[in-house]
Amino acid sequence: MGGDRGPAVVLRGALQALEADPDLRLTLVGPAEEVEPFAAVHDRATAQVATEVIEMGEHPAGAVRAKKDSSIVVGCRLVKEGAADGFFSAGSTGACLAAATLVVGRIKGVKRPALGQVIPAWARPTLLIDVGANADCKPEYLVQFAQMGEVYMNAIMGVERPKVGLLNIGEEDTKGDLFAQEAHRLLSETVPAFAGNCEGGDLMAGDFDVVVTDGFTGNVCLKTIEGTAKTLMRNLKAALMSTALSKVGALLVKGPLGALKEKMSPDTYGGTPLLGVKGAVIVGHGSSNETAVKNGIAVAAATVRAHVPEVIAERVAAAPASASAAVGAEEEGEAAASDAR
Amino acid sequence: MGGDRGPAVVLRGALQALEADPDLRLTLVGPAEEVEPFAAVHDRATAQVATEVIEMGEHPAGAVRAKKDSSIVVGCRLVKEGAADGFFSAGSTGACLAAATLVVGRIKGVKRPALGQVIPAWARPTLLIDVGANADCKPEYLVQFAQMGEVYMNAIMGVERPKVGLLNIGEEDTKGDLFAQEAHRLLSETVPAFAGNCEGGDLMAGDFDVVVTDGFTGNVCLKTIEGTAKTLMRNLKAALMSTALSKVGALLVKGPLGALKEKMSPDTYGGTPLLGVKGAVIVGHGSSNETAVKNGIAVAAATVRAHVPEVIAERVAAAPASASAAVGAEEEGEAAASDAR
Repeated sequence: MGGDRGPAVVLRGALQALEADPDLRLTLVGPAEEVEPFAAVHDRATAQVATEVIEMGEHPAGAVRAKKDSSIVVGCRLVKEGAADGFFSAGSTGACLAAATLVVGRIKGVKRPALGQVIPAWARPTLLIDVGANADCKPEYLVQFAQMGEVYMNAIMGVERPKVGLLNIGEEDTKGDLFAQEAHRLLSETVPAFAGNCEGGDLMAGDFDVVVTDGFTGNVCLKTIEGTAKTLMRNLKAALMSTALSKVGALLVKGPLGALKEKMSPDTYGGTPLLGVKGAVIVGHGSSNETAVKNGIAVAAATVRAHVPEVIAERVAAAPASASAAVGAEEEGEAAASDAR
Repeated sequence: MGGDRGPAVVLRGALQALEADPDLRLTLVGPAEEVEPFAAVHDRATAQVATEVIEMGEHPAGAVRAKKDSSIVVGCRLVKEGAADGFFSAGSTGACLAAATLVVGRIKGVKRPALGQVIPAWARPTLLIDVGANADCKPEYLVQFAQMGEVYMNAIMGVERPKVGLLNIGEEDTKGDLFAQEAHRLLSETVPAFAGNCEGGDLMAGDFDVVVTDGFTGNVCLKTIEGTAKTLMRNLKAALMSTALSKVGALLVKGPLGALKEKMSPDTYGGTPLLGVKGAVIVGHGSSNETAVKNGIAVAAATVRAHVPEVIAERVAAAPASASAAVGAEEEGEAAASDAR
C-alpha cells in the first residue's frame, strides 16, 4: 500500500528493483487491482492479494491482531511460511514491527529485535541501533544491539571488524546517566569490538561503524539528524537565492549540490532493517519515494543472500556467558507482548 | 582561564563586550598576569586574582570543593556575595554547574537547575532545556524546566507567550517511553503553555519556543545538531570544490554562505544559561571564540537586567499546587549533592 505516497510509488520502485537485479523474484502484496496487473506483465513478479489496510494512525499490535488480511500481516506470513525470504514495507513502522515480532517471530535468544539505521556520517556509514523499536530498554539489550549491528555491518556493508560505540554524553567511561553507565560496563565486558562512548557530536563524524542506544534516544537522534539536514538545506537554498550574484553561483554549483543532497537523503539507504527476527524485514520511511523502495528491496535481498538472520542467531547463541546471563531467560516472551510503536 | 583556547580569547571577547555595552562593568577573574594588565587600562574593568585552575578533565564537584581559589569558584563567590550580578565562563561545564549550585545556590523551590540552549531553528530560535545539567531526571523536573524556559524566552528573547513542547518520539499524547508519557501528563496538568510533543525532526523546524527534555537526551540532541551541521558544512565545502565550475560558483556564493555559517554557529548565541540558580550564570562552549565570549557576557548582562532569576523565583513559587506536590519537599537538598557534570 506504500506509505504516505500510495501504492503507485511502490510499484515503480519494485519495477526498478527487478530491472536492477536479474535474480530477484518479487511477490507484491496488496489489493487485487494494484498487484495483479503488475504481476501479469512481469515475469519475476507474482501477486498476493491482501484485502485489508493498516492505517498509519492505528494501534500497531491491535491492528496486526485484528487485520489478518492486511498487506503487512500477509507479507510477514509469507516469510514465516517460507514462501518469501524477506519483506519490505513503507507502511506503518509500528505495524511492521508488531507483525515481524508476532508473525515472523524473534530469533531464539534475542530479547528485543531492534531497528538499525545506516546514517551518512562523514568518514563512513554508521549504523545507529535502536532507532525506535524499543522506547524503554534495559542496559543489557544494548549488548545484543551491538552484536546484531556488527553482523549487519559486516555482512551488508562489508566492514571487516566493525567498531562499536555507545551513544553517551561524554567521552570518559564514567560519564552518562545511570542507564548509560551500566550499558558501558556490560558492553566492556561482553563485546570485544566495543571501543567506548560516542557523543552526539561525533556520530556524524563517523568514528564508529555501529553506535548502540535505547530506542527513545536513537529515534530522537535520528530524527534530529534528518531535521537538521533539512533545515540546513532550506537555509542553504535561501542563502543561494539571496543576491543576484549568488543566484548565478547557485547555477554553477547545482550538480555537486544535487550529489550532496542525494548522499544525505534517507532514501539512499532505502529503509531500516529490523534485526533479530527470523527473516529479512526492512521497514521503509513513510515518505519513501520510488528510489527508496528500490533500495529497500535491494537491502532486503542482500540481507537474505548474506544470511543475516542466521548469522545473528549463531552470534547470539555463541555470546559469552555473562551476556547470556544478563539477558536471562526470565523475560523470554515478554517482547512479543510489548506494543511496538 | 578561557576554555580550550586559553585566556587571551576571553580578554579579547571581554574588550568587545565592554565596547558594545557602555553600561557594562566587568570583573575579570584569573591569574594576576592575565587580569591585572587588562584592568589597568580599562575604565570599567576590575581584576580579581584567582590562583587555581580547574582543568577540563577534573571531577566537577570534587574540584569545586578542593579548589576554593579557582577562577570558577571565585567568580561564583562574587555573585553569591553581591559583588557581581552575573557570571560567564568558558571553562569546564561540569565545574561551572557544580560551583553555581554549591556556591551561588539554587533558587528556593527549584529542584534542579537546568541548562537551556537557544538553537537556531528555522521559524524561530528555540530553547532546548535541559541540555546536560541533569543526566538522570524525574518527569516532574520537566515541569520546572518548562517554567524556567518560558521566563527566559519571554525576558531575553521577547517572546510574549512562549509555546512549550516535550521532546518525544511521536506526535500523539500516548507516545514515548514511560518517562515521556509521565512528563506529558504532568506538563498537560500544570503548564498552560504546553502544546504537546515535539519530535526530533520538528526541533529544527522551530514549531516551539521552549522544548523540554531530560539532560541526557537534550545533550545528545544538541550535540547531534552541532555535529550534523558541521558534517553538512564539510560536505558542502567538498562539493563546492569538486569541479572547476563549482569553484567559480563557490566564490559567488561566499557572502551568503558566510552569513549562513554565522547563523548556525553556536558562538552566535554565546553560551548557555543555567536557569534556577540565584544569579545570572552563563556557561560558554569549551571552544568559545572571542565572539562567543562577547555574546556570552552580553547574555549574562541581559539576564541580570531582565531580572530572570527573580522572575523564575516568583514563577516557581506561584506554580499550581499539583506541580508543587509533584516536586515535593522530600527531595529538597538532594540536588546540591548530585554530581554536576
